[in-house]
Amino acid sequence: MPTNRQAKLIARPRPGPFTRDIFSMEDAEIATPDPGEFRVKIAYVSLDPAMRGWVNDAKSYVAPVALGEVMRAYAVGYVEASNHPDFAVGDAVQGLFGVQQYAISNGRNVVKVDPGKAPLERWVGGLGMPGWTAYFGLLDVCEPKPGETVVVSAASGAVGSVVGQIAKIKGCRAVGIAGGPEKCAYLTDGLGFDAAIDYKRGDLGDQLKAACPDGIDCNFENVGGDILDTVLMQMNVFGRIALCGLISGYTATELPPGPRNFRAVLTQRLRIRGLIVFDWKDRFPEAIAQLGDWHASGQLKIREDVREGGVDAFPDVVNLLYTGDNQGKLVLKV
Amino acid sequence: MPTNRQAKLIARPRPGPFTRDIFSMEDAEIATPDPGEFRVKIAYVSLDPAMRGWVNDAKSYVAPVALGEVMRAYAVGYVEASNHPDFAVGDAVQGLFGVQQYAISNGRNVVKVDPGKAPLERWVGGLGMPGWTAYFGLLDVCEPKPGETVVVSAASGAVGSVVGQIAKIKGCRAVGIAGGPEKCAYLTDGLGFDAAIDYKRGDLGDQLKAACPDGIDCNFENVGGDILDTVLMQMNVFGRIALCGLISGYTATELPPGPRNFRAVLTQRLRIRGLIVFDWKDRFPEAIAQLGDWHASGQLKIREDVREGGVDAFPDVVNLLYTGDNQGKLVLKV
Repeated sequence: MPTNRQAKLIARPRPGPFTRDIFSMEDAEIATPDPGEFRVKIAYVSLDPAMRGWVNDAKSYVAPVALGEVMRAYAVGYVEASNHPDFAVGDAVQGLFGVQQYAISNGRNVVKVDPGKAPLERWVGGLGMPGWTAYFGLLDVCEPKPGETVVVSAASGAVGSVVGQIAKIKGCRAVGIAGGPEKCAYLTDGLGFDAAIDYKRGDLGDQLKAACPDGIDCNFENVGGDILDTVLMQMNVFGRIALCGLISGYTATELPPGPRNFRAVLTQRLRIRGLIVFDWKDRFPEAIAQLGDWHASGQLKIREDVREGGVDAFPDVVNLLYTGDNQGKLVLKV
Repeated sequence: MPTNRQAKLIARPRPGPFTRDIFSMEDAEIATPDPGEFRVKIAYVSLDPAMRGWVNDAKSYVAPVALGEVMRAYAVGYVEASNHPDFAVGDAVQGLFGVQQYAISNGRNVVKVDPGKAPLERWVGGLGMPGWTAYFGLLDVCEPKPGETVVVSAASGAVGSVVGQIAKIKGCRAVGIAGGPEKCAYLTDGLGFDAAIDYKRGDLGDQLKAACPDGIDCNFENVGGDILDTVLMQMNVFGRIALCGLISGYTATELPPGPRNFRAVLTQRLRIRGLIVFDWKDRFPEAIAQLGDWHASGQLKIREDVREGGVDAFPDVVNLLYTGDNQGKLVLKV
């Protein structure tokens, strides 16, 4: 008899990367949907940097995952049983379904996706939440004008790769920061970025200066740490920073230092704004439509890094996000 | 024969407070204005925290004071000779006249003030640049709504004291951070702040929590360091921070650490914006008129700390800004 394999959080993490012992892999009964609910058979689970924050028992923008709960995750799959008037068997859906094989949902914050337009895994990647984050963060927070220079860190990731491509669509100079020559070549040759900077080479400031001869007007920041410090020193007057992530500190064993060059915010009259994509949820349909159009016309290229291993592989695969070893949006096949 | 006593910058400062040896006190000839110019007899020189930045040979929002130049300063005085069509002998004027007894000006960025409406020294204080900084920084950058909580640091200073009073005028809860019981009593009893926090008592976080039971919506930040770190931890979602100064780091002997709790910008979706009042110079008349009205109606109280000693006392008096030993806007009588 088939069961529902689940990754449940059973302990708070120690500082540092995810460890296997804070999860329990369990086989639950496959639940039947009540009236107003439906059941999803999950195909792909999205692995996102924010997950490390979701398991900490600390004040944040959402409540932490409770102990004993299935690990929170975006996922995509097909409705296979429904008592909900708006969702039919066979519908492809995306939502916060968790790290498991089957999920029951009441439809709240669930989005129907079209696997005819793009492969299913792409709807938790560049056409899903990461793409919407890039869309609103760049256009609404950074407000780039044609001819301006946009710098994005973690540029080969799910969010960053879309940020740079939208910047190009909007007539900006797009500069990406990534780790290693292969990722950098992908940004310039594969995605059309104007320049790519390899932070592993160590001469970040000089590379950035060469790539941004007119300074930096917009920074879409996913990393923080040394990268943000270096960017701050080269921001133009009235520059805008969308603070989307501080991944450099997510697995730190103590509170990482703040941005050393914070004084630049004052002298350059910068604007920094923290970005959580849920704040734009009323406008998700706009992002879905626009990103879908750009993708269909070939202006927006998206790549996934799909890993095998199912639910049991989750604790190991998710850590690839923090070591930078993924190539494109990291997705776990269930 | 009378001469023009001047404080000239002759060396770049070492890290730390101002020292007397970087200035040369000189007696120059009293110059005659050319056509299109006028001469001001200076009565009061304004001492401002930004001065420490102006003497560093570093990229900032204005060029540094050059070696051999009279030290840059706002000042107020009377026109005593004029070849300028718009300025007549006897006019009271405010401008960047420098630390000296007499200045020649072409009128650019000079504002006429009315010593009948407020004493002359007040026009380099709460009704001058510090007041305009408070006005635009609070209203345009923080955008406080009635009922919100506004926290201002260096609250008994020239800028901070006006920030809190405007917050009250706009229907907000005004909380000031200052050093010592005397300054704190002045904020609540003298200026009508709802609460005052003594950062020298050492329990900043607890005091702030008690003073801001509904959290902090707006922060007008003049200090940085531990104060900003503590405020960041208590900011409400969608809070706004006007970064006006980082006085805690102005005399540091090495680059001070960045805000440790910078992650709150992300989780709370804060907006931080660097504030330099010159960016609003087209709207200075609006601030002058509005502040003047509030002052005339008794809603805006302003206090100066006028120090004697003339030009020669400048290097010692200016350091009072960084030790917090002034009571109200620090002004040097020339």
